[in-house]
Amino acid sequence: MLVILSPDCSVAEVAAVEASITAMGYTPLAVPGENRTAICVTGNKGPVDAGPLRGLPGVVDCIRVTKPYKLVSREVHPADTVITVGRTQIGGDATPVMIAGPCSVETEARTLRIAEAVKAAGATMFRAGAFKPRTSPYDFQGLGVEALHTLRQVREQFELPIVSEIVDASHLEQMIDTVDVLQVGARNMQNFALLQRLADQPRPVLLKRGAAATLTEWLMAAEYLLAGGKRDVILCERGIRSFSDHSRNTLDLNVVPVVRQMSHLPILVDPSHGTGRRERVRAMARAGIAAGAQGLLVEAHFDPASSYTDAAQTVSDEVLKGISADLGVLAGLGSIE
Amino acid sequence: MLVILSPDCSVAEVAAVEASITAMGYTPLAVPGENRTAICVTGNKGPVDAGPLRGLPGVVDCIRVTKPYKLVSREVHPADTVITVGRTQIGGDATPVMIAGPCSVETEARTLRIAEAVKAAGATMFRAGAFKPRTSPYDFQGLGVEALHTLRQVREQFELPIVSEIVDASHLEQMIDTVDVLQVGARNMQNFALLQRLADQPRPVLLKRGAAATLTEWLMAAEYLLAGGKRDVILCERGIRSFSDHSRNTLDLNVVPVVRQMSHLPILVDPSHGTGRRERVRAMARAGIAAGAQGLLVEAHFDPASSYTDAAQTVSDEVLKGISADLGVLAGLGSIE
Amino acid sequence: MLVILSPDCSVAEVAAVEASITAMGYTPLAVPGENRTAICVTGNKGPVDAGPLRGLPGVVDCIRVTKPYKLVSREVHPADTVITVGRTQIGGDATPVMIAGPCSVETEARTLRIAEAVKAAGATMFRAGAFKPRTSPYDFQGLGVEALHTLRQVREQFELPIVSEIVDASHLEQMIDTVDVLQVGARNMQNFALLQRLADQPRPVLLKRGAAATLTEWLMAAEYLLAGGKRDVILCERGIRSFSDHSRNTLDLNVVPVVRQMSHLPILVDPSHGTGRRERVRAMARAGIAAGAQGLLVEAHFDPASSYTDAAQTVSDEVLKGISADLGVLAGLGSIE
Amino acid sequence: MLVILSPDCSVAEVAAVEASITAMGYTPLAVPGENRTAICVTGNKGPVDAGPLRGLPGVVDCIRVTKPYKLVSREVHPADTVITVGRTQIGGDATPVMIAGPCSVETEARTLRIAEAVKAAGATMFRAGAFKPRTSPYDFQGLGVEALHTLRQVREQFELPIVSEIVDASHLEQMIDTVDVLQVGARNMQNFALLQRLADQPRPVLLKRGAAATLTEWLMAAEYLLAGGKRDVILCERGIRSFSDHSRNTLDLNVVPVVRQMSHLPILVDPSHGTGRRERVRAMARAGIAAGAQGLLVEAHFDPASSYTDAAQTVSDEVLKGISADLGVLAGLGSIE
Repeated sequence: MLVILSPDCSVAEVAAVEASITAMGYTPLAVPGENRTAICVTGNKGPVDAGPLRGLPGVVDCIRVTKPYKLVSREVHPADTVITVGRTQIGGDATPVMIAGPCSVETEARTLRIAEAVKAAGATMFRAGAFKPRTSPYDFQGLGVEALHTLRQVREQFELPIVSEIVDASHLEQMIDTVDVLQVGARNMQNFALLQRLADQPRPVLLKRGAAATLTEWLMAAEYLLAGGKRDVILCERGIRSFSDHSRNTLDLNVVPVVRQMSHLPILVDPSHGTGRRERVRAMARAGIAAGAQGLLVEAHFDPASSYTDAAQTVSDEVLKGISADLGVLAGLGSIE
Repeated sequence: MLVILSPDCSVAEVAAVEASITAMGYTPLAVPGENRTAICVTGNKGPVDAGPLRGLPGVVDCIRVTKPYKLVSREVHPADTVITVGRTQIGGDATPVMIAGPCSVETEARTLRIAEAVKAAGATMFRAGAFKPRTSPYDFQGLGVEALHTLRQVREQFELPIVSEIVDASHLEQMIDTVDVLQVGARNMQNFALLQRLADQPRPVLLKRGAAATLTEWLMAAEYLLAGGKRDVILCERGIRSFSDHSRNTLDLNVVPVVRQMSHLPILVDPSHGTGRRERVRAMARAGIAAGAQGLLVEAHFDPASSYTDAAQTVSDEVLKGISADLGVLAGLGSIE
Repeated sequence: MLVILSPDCSVAEVAAVEASITAMGYTPLAVPGENRTAICVTGNKGPVDAGPLRGLPGVVDCIRVTKPYKLVSREVHPADTVITVGRTQIGGDATPVMIAGPCSVETEARTLRIAEAVKAAGATMFRAGAFKPRTSPYDFQGLGVEALHTLRQVREQFELPIVSEIVDASHLEQMIDTVDVLQVGARNMQNFALLQRLADQPRPVLLKRGAAATLTEWLMAAEYLLAGGKRDVILCERGIRSFSDHSRNTLDLNVVPVVRQMSHLPILVDPSHGTGRRERVRAMARAGIAAGAQGLLVEAHFDPASSYTDAAQTVSDEVLKGISADLGVLAGLGSIE
Repeated sequence: MLVILSPDCSVAEVAAVEASITAMGYTPLAVPGENRTAICVTGNKGPVDAGPLRGLPGVVDCIRVTKPYKLVSREVHPADTVITVGRTQIGGDATPVMIAGPCSVETEARTLRIAEAVKAAGATMFRAGAFKPRTSPYDFQGLGVEALHTLRQVREQFELPIVSEIVDASHLEQMIDTVDVLQVGARNMQNFALLQRLADQPRPVLLKRGAAATLTEWLMAAEYLLAGGKRDVILCERGIRSFSDHSRNTLDLNVVPVVRQMSHLPILVDPSHGTGRRERVRAMARAGIAAGAQGLLVEAHFDPASSYTDAAQTVSDEVLKGISADLGVLAGLGSIE
């Protein structure tokens, strides 16, 4: 249930509505908007009786929300969420963001050289993993705290905001000063303990879709973040698991127009994990933007073959320049009403 | 094994090479090219001994083919196959083809009106089913022979070549005069009896990917056509089956750059079956072309909601006009070397 | 809609009900039962108005059928269908049938030796392919007509009914004298032209589930056979396609209790294609019967490694003896009410 | 690389081998066995040079391990791992364990009544969730700490060891006194931070397969536990995600014989999550054991329809009694050599 308030209602009226919702045994969640304020009724199992709320001062309307997700839904928040990180905007009609960098943070010298190359190629944010979730316990797990120091250098020298994955809530304190956007990886999409912890910290969260997650499960994972108070959530499609074995994952670009229709949150595409093969990244970067994605997350390196991890899907900065040029062409498509 | 012949070898030399291959217990298949002639050795189970062939007059080289498919492969036929149907070219660097029309042929009056609308919207070929494969035996199975008469009217009045699905080899004789491109649907992709019959008739064949077909199985199905003598084969991605339930199928656009790399055959995308939902067709048409597809197969109608079949995924001619405009913008992307 | 007739209604009354259904624009299909006769109304798109039928003499009740499938459903035919082939019964509470033999028919001498071995191991029917659908056009496609001659020898010498796959309706005339049960393979499950042809011939049909077929699609494919007049249809689960790559297919044994609940048709399990690996066949044969399957289709050979095709999943007659013994133990489980 | 030591080698010799492995830059892990001691070389990326190790005193052989997993593999640990919890044994040829109970811990009175019912029906361990991972943040998340108190009552009154899921490493301290086996749910199978924490505590761990996990990924997740020092790990198949929509998940019973062949760890089957439907649980419990599983994890309740969560897949204690009886019959199958 979404309780729509009059644009000129008073703070006391808002508080009274919230108190009524609480008295009914539910939890009120304020949803600020440009032109209106709304209060979302959460915590109900079945339909909510709108009767007691309709009559309260300041209440304009009570709208039943039919999807299991609420705060991520356009029904509750019609306008696109636009997230500002440094000088970059993500979402809405902003220029598609290009976030690029190596899979893992490497030595400081190499990482700075990558940062320089991807910035020159048009990237406006830098991605690199300090802590790497790996299928094998014997594989390289990232440089950890040392990598955070390197990322700080990147941010200072190149003024590139940093996107990096958090795999353990206990790392949050260390990461929060260095990392501008905290990424939740596909394997942790339904690690609800982690999501709840991330809902209550100041950084935007980039939530990748799990390899076996339905659209609903993905949006519900985002709902955990929003229900916990975080407004700045970015979705990222990175490929699902299917029988199709010609690529590492099956990039489900169909999901892009659906997410844009159903949710106000920005959606990016990761053509690197989405294909697993360097020579296909540019084609799928084009396709992702053409489908309506609001940005890209690309693994890139000045010498891709020497990448510490995920070398096969890492592109050169030359390819990244090509993708930047493609973004200019694709801007001519305009939005689909 | 691919036996490369000298550009100036004689007909007698070609015949001698073919005779040697036959004597070894294999089957020779000539592969004509612009600048060279090659002979493909087929019918072998294991590696072929190149020794007896290398020494023959006119033989320049013997190349081992490592993929299970041969004639569909770029290893055997490096240049793009370009197929001409009426005044339309499909494949290579030709302008992406837009094939549009209703799911099923409707009454003559309505079908002609659809043809007029889609032609005005930029379609250069007309698609419509006379015989419809349906999950239920109780559902409308197409108008059959009567529909073929209607399709002839479309071809004559609007000079639109016709694409229509063949579901039974016994219909071939009836269809061949009316239909310019014979479509094999996803359910029949591995109906090898049908493929073998279609290899030996004059029309180009459009082969849709089966919903559970790997890339290799799809290309091997095309190989049945080429091995039977048909050169003009068009591939079409229309979505695969995965757990993902937000769309009718999961459009596997990743396959587009892979097919373009591995095969010389043209590849189209069908965003109608690929999504199952009208409002997502344009976004995925854009994405398909951006990924490198050489054309689109779109279900379109002057009044989509009244379509006999597949109404939910049929777009209006207005939307089709938008897609035509998008093709112009996307032409600016250029090819990825 | 299912029109239930009185047990003592006359032939003229049945004809009158059928005429009324035809007059309403639908197609009547008689469903004979032990204790009652019913007439199924097919060909309707939406709900059928029961009014005009309820009042007719002999009509006891009109029941709305809610599933898209009708004739395959227990709603229409509550009792198990039991199919008799020679001295073997398939379905209901009959002893689970064991159908075994090589993937392909081999030389006459080898094939007879296989038949002797599988019969000694407990098989009561013989399976072997004369015409093989193969992913590659260059692979062995079966011995064809010659194989049919060999199968006749097996039937005569060992009194084993023959199960063999039909891949092309044009082979029907040749096969029908030799083959006791015509198998439709997974790739042809939705080859509706073939299904329609097989509905109108005297042999039982064994319909394998397509690798990407939902339960509904599979039952609807069977519905094509029943709607065409064939009553003797056997279903066979042989594994679906999923991301799981440790076996050739993912045997979906969950489907067994569901089919037994929803349909009266017998269901078998094929643990050979269901796993793709010889050493797992016995475990999954056990599991299939434990799940409620009414029989097994097993690839077996006196010397599995030398099989013409599918050697990796073919078991020895020794393993087959073990499976026969397992069937005895599993008989102790009893049915689940 | 696995270094096999002589049965009569000295402690000093073992230490010397470990020191050599460390000096080579790798990590030694002792693998105790009944008849031999072995040391596993971990931390290598490529092949290990056996030369320096072969000559050391006490070294009998150096065996190259070809799978990415080592400690979970039979190559490293040939004998079945048998885990003892209270008076129950899990694994090897022990009687299959039946772990049953409600999805979530309910009120103390109801939970005790469930425990009494499932014990009477043959369960030897009790399962119930105190902390529930839920797709929706608005759904019931379990009774938490209060539930742990109830579980202690169950353990004391009915002498049933407790299996319960841990969703957050920060709950470990609270849970460890009450819970005998810590379960890692499907969604957390690749939550490596949680796995690493659980490797270093005294309770056995039951690791469910992720819904999109390949066999290798699942065994590698178990490898995280073993590499961290935990020996008592139980695997549990609970269904994977496929296109097949007739059941909640697709129970992949094919994996059971494969796991038994490749790993020494016990494997259970969860027919409740594996089907999602109460009326199919018994059939699939039978099938799971017939496939070779060493136990079952079943959601059961004295009044299934009133379950707090997962009511649709919870069986009555009557059904559980039937499953207990089935286990007796299935014991007659014997193992497959």
